[in-house]
Amino acid sequence: MATPVGIVGYRGYSGAELVHLLERHRRVEPVLLEHREDAGSRPRPRGARGPRQAPFTPDAVKAEGIGLVFLATPADVSMALAPAMLGAGVKVVDLSGAFRLRTPERYHAWYKEPHTQPELLAEAAYGLPEFCRQRVRGARLVANPGCYPTAANLAIKPLVEAGVVDLDAGVICDAKSGVSGAGRKPSLKTSFCEVTENFSAYSILHHRHVPEVLLTSGLEEQQFSFTAQLLPIDRGILETIYVRAPRVSSASDLVDILEKRYAGEAFVRVYDAGHAPDLRAVQRTNFCDLGVVFDASTKRGVIVSAIDNLVKGAAGQAIQNMNLMLGFEESEALL
Amino acid sequence: MATPVGIVGYRGYSGAELVHLLERHRRVEPVLLEHREDAGSRPRPRGARGPRQAPFTPDAVKAEGIGLVFLATPADVSMALAPAMLGAGVKVVDLSGAFRLRTPERYHAWYKEPHTQPELLAEAAYGLPEFCRQRVRGARLVANPGCYPTAANLAIKPLVEAGVVDLDAGVICDAKSGVSGAGRKPSLKTSFCEVTENFSAYSILHHRHVPEVLLTSGLEEQQFSFTAQLLPIDRGILETIYVRAPRVSSASDLVDILEKRYAGEAFVRVYDAGHAPDLRAVQRTNFCDLGVVFDASTKRGVIVSAIDNLVKGAAGQAIQNMNLMLGFEESEALL
Amino acid sequence: MATPVGIVGYRGYSGAELVHLLERHRRVEPVLLEHREDAGSRPRPRGARGPRQAPFTPDAVKAEGIGLVFLATPADVSMALAPAMLGAGVKVVDLSGAFRLRTPERYHAWYKEPHTQPELLAEAAYGLPEFCRQRVRGARLVANPGCYPTAANLAIKPLVEAGVVDLDAGVICDAKSGVSGAGRKPSLKTSFCEVTENFSAYSILHHRHVPEVLLTSGLEEQQFSFTAQLLPIDRGILETIYVRAPRVSSASDLVDILEKRYAGEAFVRVYDAGHAPDLRAVQRTNFCDLGVVFDASTKRGVIVSAIDNLVKGAAGQAIQNMNLMLGFEESEALL
Amino acid sequence: MATPVGIVGYRGYSGAELVHLLERHRRVEPVLLEHREDAGSRPRPRGARGPRQAPFTPDAVKAEGIGLVFLATPADVSMALAPAMLGAGVKVVDLSGAFRLRTPERYHAWYKEPHTQPELLAEAAYGLPEFCRQRVRGARLVANPGCYPTAANLAIKPLVEAGVVDLDAGVICDAKSGVSGAGRKPSLKTSFCEVTENFSAYSILHHRHVPEVLLTSGLEEQQFSFTAQLLPIDRGILETIYVRAPRVSSASDLVDILEKRYAGEAFVRVYDAGHAPDLRAVQRTNFCDLGVVFDASTKRGVIVSAIDNLVKGAAGQAIQNMNLMLGFEESEALL
Repeated sequence: MATPVGIVGYRGYSGAELVHLLERHRRVEPVLLEHREDAGSRPRPRGARGPRQAPFTPDAVKAEGIGLVFLATPADVSMALAPAMLGAGVKVVDLSGAFRLRTPERYHAWYKEPHTQPELLAEAAYGLPEFCRQRVRGARLVANPGCYPTAANLAIKPLVEAGVVDLDAGVICDAKSGVSGAGRKPSLKTSFCEVTENFSAYSILHHRHVPEVLLTSGLEEQQFSFTAQLLPIDRGILETIYVRAPRVSSASDLVDILEKRYAGEAFVRVYDAGHAPDLRAVQRTNFCDLGVVFDASTKRGVIVSAIDNLVKGAAGQAIQNMNLMLGFEESEALL
Repeated sequence: MATPVGIVGYRGYSGAELVHLLERHRRVEPVLLEHREDAGSRPRPRGARGPRQAPFTPDAVKAEGIGLVFLATPADVSMALAPAMLGAGVKVVDLSGAFRLRTPERYHAWYKEPHTQPELLAEAAYGLPEFCRQRVRGARLVANPGCYPTAANLAIKPLVEAGVVDLDAGVICDAKSGVSGAGRKPSLKTSFCEVTENFSAYSILHHRHVPEVLLTSGLEEQQFSFTAQLLPIDRGILETIYVRAPRVSSASDLVDILEKRYAGEAFVRVYDAGHAPDLRAVQRTNFCDLGVVFDASTKRGVIVSAIDNLVKGAAGQAIQNMNLMLGFEESEALL
Repeated sequence: MATPVGIVGYRGYSGAELVHLLERHRRVEPVLLEHREDAGSRPRPRGARGPRQAPFTPDAVKAEGIGLVFLATPADVSMALAPAMLGAGVKVVDLSGAFRLRTPERYHAWYKEPHTQPELLAEAAYGLPEFCRQRVRGARLVANPGCYPTAANLAIKPLVEAGVVDLDAGVICDAKSGVSGAGRKPSLKTSFCEVTENFSAYSILHHRHVPEVLLTSGLEEQQFSFTAQLLPIDRGILETIYVRAPRVSSASDLVDILEKRYAGEAFVRVYDAGHAPDLRAVQRTNFCDLGVVFDASTKRGVIVSAIDNLVKGAAGQAIQNMNLMLGFEESEALL
Repeated sequence: MATPVGIVGYRGYSGAELVHLLERHRRVEPVLLEHREDAGSRPRPRGARGPRQAPFTPDAVKAEGIGLVFLATPADVSMALAPAMLGAGVKVVDLSGAFRLRTPERYHAWYKEPHTQPELLAEAAYGLPEFCRQRVRGARLVANPGCYPTAANLAIKPLVEAGVVDLDAGVICDAKSGVSGAGRKPSLKTSFCEVTENFSAYSILHHRHVPEVLLTSGLEEQQFSFTAQLLPIDRGILETIYVRAPRVSSASDLVDILEKRYAGEAFVRVYDAGHAPDLRAVQRTNFCDLGVVFDASTKRGVIVSAIDNLVKGAAGQAIQNMNLMLGFEESEALL
């Protein structure tokens, strides 16, 4: 018997990816929850059956027997919708930034708006399973990590924990993302003619995903520089991360640290020393691929971290979290 | 002494192309006319000087000594703005569809709105210089042709006039355009993630550019099929045109007809029999390139017609018309 | 117990897609058959396990217990390799053009080389399951259809059979394909800088896929015009097909014909009258999507047919054929 | 009277850009020098006249009255061809890496081949006009800078010279380039299907352009990290450069340093503090655009440097150098 799970915001790119991935899940059945009518449906073949739909109200959600809801909505909408679901006994995986930071003050500083649910903020578990698996298992509310921080933290945190990085020299993360990371709402910045054959940096040094990286990796603000950049592609994030590692003698040392940390992990893959993933290696998968290059004479190293922003950076990781919360195999529907 | 000419709608793609091309014109000076404030300016280097700006009012236009105005605006805006300019003694080249058809009835049928300036509609000269040069020279108001009809008519009209096409079998025009043809206003249909790695047909058989082709080429409605399609590129139109030519014996016969018709024309280029242009051949130029392939045993032929939709399909042809209207060398700023 | 099936040419785009799709098949296990060493492998994560490999010799193929081999190789290679496999009692699905036409003369005329296996040519079953399912079931050797003919025949054949198309006016098929259709071997024509932001026609009227369309659809040469064109995308074919249908009164009539013909078919989907698929609807699926637009006053209609050239146009259809040949569920691994 | 100048390698992307740009030059006439026959010409319209052609021999070059030759050839070819030209009294601008480094040892270390013309290597002037204008004016042989070093040095050198950069923390240059930088020769790495919707790093920390940056900027090897990455676009380089500047208090301080250094320069443009160029700002221009973002609390800054790799990164800068060598206006044909 499949468990019904709801998706709010199913027309957006992350929401649509959730629906697509859940169609292969053997233990759950996706239900589209209609939060508000919007345009932009695509023509469908005659007779094509999609998932069933239901109105997004606590009563309807209960009546459908829905045990968990994904919120693929903007942060302010997630803040408004989460309490009613939790109040109705429904677990929530939120894909927005609403519940990722620790305090209302920090949220206010980076999201430029007051947080309206400080108690839920305090309660939420941060859903990076490779580092927070236990808390996720028992959580009612999981804050699914941002796409950029997922790729950054999986690369940086093991090296910082191992103590091999010169923190004073700083960790530089030069991040590039496909356009789907900006969502489906039309805007000039994501119009085809503005993006194609172009490349641009945005939110240089001040992207709202920075505090997520600091929180998880343990880096301090003056130790970290981050730039987000827009690739003329649909999906994928590649981050080029620069470190100084004075006591390391070769790329293999860093590869070893990563491999040990991720032994047994289904979704983090490490490359041979000196090799790096491209985006093709991870698109339409839930993998985070990591490669290391190191120059022994200058003690400077580069870690390349690649994910699909809609999968490991959003919908895939959300399902990974759901699997943990509902007691399923963690990789179900994701391999 | 350079003549000032005004551009309304200079932030759109056609308007920006006008400004870009006019910066090389030795006889005119572009002036940006501010019709209404909108967003979407790009960051500029410090100290970069663009063309001068002026408000869009008859008084300001006169005070600036502007003799001609380009309207790179939607059809309804052009209908509203043209009368005041003409009333102030300023010539107008309109890049919208407002003045391209012959009667208010026909305009209403294809544009789904009533025409508010039927007298100007009757007066306007259709600005396809290769066929209407004389009328353009003396006109106050020129309707710059649509991008699709420009490429279609330059290919079709000489062959229809030569009487070699089997009109009962019909002329099929399968047209593909880059996204800039849809304008700069953000919409889901022109969002990067919807367009990249995709291809789609729209307005199949019912595109509003159809009557322009019929009007100029002399084809009747039941003799012509037209489909518009969206290429995942910024700029360029390529049309693949299918005819039956029962009395023709080789591609060279058709090439000869085209070459004779366009002898002396600066902007129409014909390829050797059996060869066809791609979009690269015409991008960022005012050329329309034509190639012919013919199968002698089946008497079926294909004409490939390629233009840059923003140049020969919009801004370049508009300047070609301006050059005629103001008595300059027709190819000034365009070669 | 999974049946081992072999893939020759697994580094090419069709071959790699076969491997990718077969990894989900519950009844077979892919084995990579090394026909000759070539470059171009991609870096892999440490410990990543791919399918097992074996040398491509009759002995090795027998020793592995392989019952069927896919040849994702050029036509001349397929002709050279097929006999030994069949001689060893191994069934063959060939993805090249080697065995698609009926006679050596016709092969010679279109492929410009003599056919070296005329008996196998005569024996081979053409693998378009929607029309040739019975023959495929009993075949030793299946010629997997070309990508363009698959999309064309599924759209055209039911309408020709229904007798609604004016054959004298002709059927025009304007086809556009992603670059993966040209294979993985580097060439100037498929280099990024030549293709991006470009669009071009090739093999106008003389593409070697034409005789496949004639053979299956029943059209005669003088009734059919075909142009192949290169889209600046990775994968997908969209064909815009023009017909005259004098006795038809609306698009719904044509939709009805298609729907009746494909009732019960898993992989052909028809759209509501007046709607057409884009490539997004079929990419990474084995579907062929069909849409119809019709103009009742001119009796001219357009059928849009869309497939993924690597799936329904190659690897997916090959697996569909394999499923029939080996007695599995026809849609296994394909839905 | 126009001076004839020769172009060797005119079918490559840099060579073709040279021809394109020189067609607007009022003082020189391009002559295509046929070094060896190769494939890959594009179809041309009938009657289209290109530049005249001549064989590439000292006699022919003299007979044509050619005073300067551009070598748009690989480094080994440039080394082989330059001596004969210089011996015939013809000046040379070489676009390869053959003459950019200072010693044969350094060349051997980075290019993995011995240098066959050590005396010319010693004689050659490095052609970054903004820093080496005087030497270029008097040179017989100019080594046109690499594309990556041009963007890097114009951003870094003024800041290093001003003494504001913490050299121990290091300067990180994360560089992204369009595919035309890899040349026109077909290869799997630059095939459309491998590049589109992809992004990848290559030559991480070990690109052969690194020593050019060190040589010009004055940085030492352990102070500099460089990664080259392939954008799925035709043309453009954007470099994101990370520095620590402990004594600087705002982005404006860095902007001021850049503006003062480049006052009077025609081709380096600086943006307002906090703003950065995208590639659109520089494509098809000879500009290098520079933008600065700085975080006062962490003393970390980012400089974004953007050029068109085929113009300021190759053909445009080569013409800038030619203008200096032949005594023309430095910006002729480039604004």
